[in-house]
Amino acid sequence: MDRVSVQTNVLKANQEIATENRRFFEGEGTVVINLMSAPGAGKTSLLEATIRELRGRYRLAVIEGDLQTDLDSRRIQALGTRSHQITTGTVCHLDARMVARALAEFPVQGLDLLVIENVGNLICPASYDLGESLRVVICSVAEGAEKPKKYPVMFHKADVVLLNKTDLAAASGVDLRDLETNVKEVNPKATVFAVSCKTGIGLDSWVAWLRDAIASRIIAATART
Amino acid sequence: MDRVSVQTNVLKANQEIATENRRFFEGEGTVVINLMSAPGAGKTSLLEATIRELRGRYRLAVIEGDLQTDLDSRRIQALGTRSHQITTGTVCHLDARMVARALAEFPVQGLDLLVIENVGNLICPASYDLGESLRVVICSVAEGAEKPKKYPVMFHKADVVLLNKTDLAAASGVDLRDLETNVKEVNPKATVFAVSCKTGIGLDSWVAWLRDAIASRIIAATART
Repeated sequence: MDRVSVQTNVLKANQEIATENRRFFEGEGTVVINLMSAPGAGKTSLLEATIRELRGRYRLAVIEGDLQTDLDSRRIQALGTRSHQITTGTVCHLDARMVARALAEFPVQGLDLLVIENVGNLICPASYDLGESLRVVICSVAEGAEKPKKYPVMFHKADVVLLNKTDLAAASGVDLRDLETNVKEVNPKATVFAVSCKTGIGLDSWVAWLRDAIASRIIAATART
Repeated sequence: MDRVSVQTNVLKANQEIATENRRFFEGEGTVVINLMSAPGAGKTSLLEATIRELRGRYRLAVIEGDLQTDLDSRRIQALGTRSHQITTGTVCHLDARMVARALAEFPVQGLDLLVIENVGNLICPASYDLGESLRVVICSVAEGAEKPKKYPVMFHKADVVLLNKTDLAAASGVDLRDLETNVKEVNPKATVFAVSCKTGIGLDSWVAWLRDAIASRIIAATART
């Protein structure tokens, strides 16, 4: 079997498991976010800021995907939120089977929100459905305005794009409007938030949007029962 | 054949072609750099700054690897340096065969320096030998100090690590010494340069190092003939 056929089979098998994961999450009325970005764009910082706003009001948990180290998982646990580590070794993305295995060890029944923080990679994670409800992509302003054009698959499939580190825009010489225009060119339907996890600017709009998404899911799940 | 066996065969086939590429480059006395980083760490900016210092004195060319767009290749050509674009589509890394095919279309005989700018990805490109003489990794300070620990394979195999965007260190809240310590922990043999392609700080040391590398290669090639 050649490489392309193997890859096609891998993605097909992944889709079947992702569909099972999605059925489980929908049955629980849980909003599941697949959080993706390049290395160091601020996934864990966004999670920390989001957890600080939502904890106490919602039942939350996090699954952390990393090649190595449990540094991120410990940052989440330090906030009093449950977190499970998936260490992928050399694998450059999470897949649906890894998530299904994690669920066997890490009970997530009855959650309002589960965030799956993917491996830092702006390419391959876009191809692997995990069973999520929402795909959230973070782009660091410091990476430059042309990233959406250069990594279109990731941006094309995103429900939400967060432009993070806006506090570095001037120092990086990046025009935030150019970056947002490039996101919209690749994906006109994406909801875009410009934020700084460091200063907190823009996070209120993101958190309000997320609260609405959780509320809609809870209403939908209640209607089904 | 399962996925792991296919991957093993792919890497074995890649190694054979990389060895042929390397033999060709060595015969030409050309220093070949495989330039790797996460998206937006500054590969093309480093190339622009390096070309400005070396052009006129050395015979240079660039091969650009990108998922989409020829934005980077056009930046290089704007400096009067020959550049060839490899567009990978959805493939997250360059491989030796892509480089061999590029060489068939893009003559590089007699060059002093060929830089192959890889796809922006801190994971998969580390596994594919292209036939290069040197592996140069750029890490943006704005990505955070812990990146070498979280992406160890890429840093472990690097000959040179450039810590770029040092002008953003204070604003990013990143201690440059922590970042350098983490690089050295993963790879004590790497030559490390702290630079800012924006302000120019530190680039003179990198360019001096590269000139020495080119000189050694020219001497070695002359000795062989």
